[in-house]
Amino acid sequence: MTTRKKIAYLGPPGTFSEEAALKYDEKAQLLAFFTIPAVASAVETGIADEGIVPIENSLEGSVTDTLDLLIHDSRLLINRELVLPIDHHLLVKPDTETIDIKVIYSHPQALAQCRRFLERCFPKAEMVAALSTAAAVEQMMSSPVPAGAIGNNRAAMLYGARPLAKNIQDRSPNVTRFVVLTLHDSPPTGNDKTSLCFSFSEDHPGLLTSVLQEFAEHDINLSKVESRPSKEGLGKYIFLVDVDGHRKDPLVGEVLGRVEQKTSLLKIFGSYPRYRHSI
Amino acid sequence: MTTRKKIAYLGPPGTFSEEAALKYDEKAQLLAFFTIPAVASAVETGIADEGIVPIENSLEGSVTDTLDLLIHDSRLLINRELVLPIDHHLLVKPDTETIDIKVIYSHPQALAQCRRFLERCFPKAEMVAALSTAAAVEQMMSSPVPAGAIGNNRAAMLYGARPLAKNIQDRSPNVTRFVVLTLHDSPPTGNDKTSLCFSFSEDHPGLLTSVLQEFAEHDINLSKVESRPSKEGLGKYIFLVDVDGHRKDPLVGEVLGRVEQKTSLLKIFGSYPRYRHSI
Repeated sequence: MTTRKKIAYLGPPGTFSEEAALKYDEKAQLLAFFTIPAVASAVETGIADEGIVPIENSLEGSVTDTLDLLIHDSRLLINRELVLPIDHHLLVKPDTETIDIKVIYSHPQALAQCRRFLERCFPKAEMVAALSTAAAVEQMMSSPVPAGAIGNNRAAMLYGARPLAKNIQDRSPNVTRFVVLTLHDSPPTGNDKTSLCFSFSEDHPGLLTSVLQEFAEHDINLSKVESRPSKEGLGKYIFLVDVDGHRKDPLVGEVLGRVEQKTSLLKIFGSYPRYRHSI
Repeated sequence: MTTRKKIAYLGPPGTFSEEAALKYDEKAQLLAFFTIPAVASAVETGIADEGIVPIENSLEGSVTDTLDLLIHDSRLLINRELVLPIDHHLLVKPDTETIDIKVIYSHPQALAQCRRFLERCFPKAEMVAALSTAAAVEQMMSSPVPAGAIGNNRAAMLYGARPLAKNIQDRSPNVTRFVVLTLHDSPPTGNDKTSLCFSFSEDHPGLLTSVLQEFAEHDINLSKVESRPSKEGLGKYIFLVDVDGHRKDPLVGEVLGRVEQKTSLLKIFGSYPRYRHSI
């Protein structure tokens, strides 16, 4: 008897995180957790071997809970990235008619991604925020008034809902990047990315620029630059960057050494293969 | 008869945006709108003279709806910034006892800011997302099961709720920066900031760095650097920066001219006096 890999994901069943986990490893045993920190704790404590959480959407931007977890609250590393197309559907109970819909449930990000469709087709419906798209479908199914929910095909199947309108998001491509978190990152493959964050104890002109220059001078491309609050007061930031290359590449390692000298904090979130194809 | 200034804010009554608007100009006529784009439209079309929206919280980071509005959807300019301390209270109906609370309503950001308190004191309560802290208080007051809501003093007063626990946020200082949006920005005062965004049509190592270097070389401090998705696909970003100085200062103007040459898009969100004291 072989032991199946256990993967923790941001639940409940029917979320896009579950869809990403299923496509990443359909043989694994999937364990739903209800917050991003809970997924990380499950991996840190051995309940699961790997954890899958969303990190960035092409329309809405970063998932700040995941960034803050990596910065402040976890020693897990990014072992892999996955990119999943996000197709939103308007789901209803099998017997609900379009004209009767009074309430539409979804996660605030899904409501935002479908705003134009909702304003045009359901200008009078009340929009109600839910903690996940899957929870929204569950609330819709038990709603006493005729309701809709924005969710995916899997949620429709799991909760017995009917897709009334398909692909209702305002723009394409709508894709979400997920990361697989484990106790160790990935060995070099020759086509890798490294994610990291840094901050400074002082604030004077040019500090950030001088760090970014280290990468530019060595022709290391930055594919992302972002700031998050340090939580120590307004205007104090931690900077997050994704750079091309693996932390074990000699050039990247040398530049990271120089960056460490210029910063008061440097935390590497891991090196992992660059994503190639949508899963 | 003098005409009162009309200020649009992110409602409903009882939100922190309303509190900011009241402290900013207690004589103005306040008009509640239910989304950030609606506040902007009210100002653009003359329904209101000014609009007040949150842009950044010291714990949770940027309010991405406001950033995306400034980037993509509005010609309004930032005329002023306001900083408001955010004190969260747990509000209940006058006759609700602590031990009976089964459900806690609030905006997801408020739930996140009070997570530690909630986990310790209400480990078994169900957390329910609401579209605003004020809407959460309204839902709590009409809840059939004993419930709590995270909100502010004004919401407690408006909806007849009782503060059961005060200042329940996990960390201090918890402050939110709001911006006043109008058709024009502010004249130079000698202690100003300028907010802007830029992007590139190509992606090669060092482009971002070379723009930031223009500011660094002229000793213009960057107080914020952030990226938002361009909405054209994963990995394509628009960069937002706040710099010290007014766009009409000769040095700042000259550097902005150089930045314009290096970028495919440059949009100035406005120059406005740097905030000094909490309102």
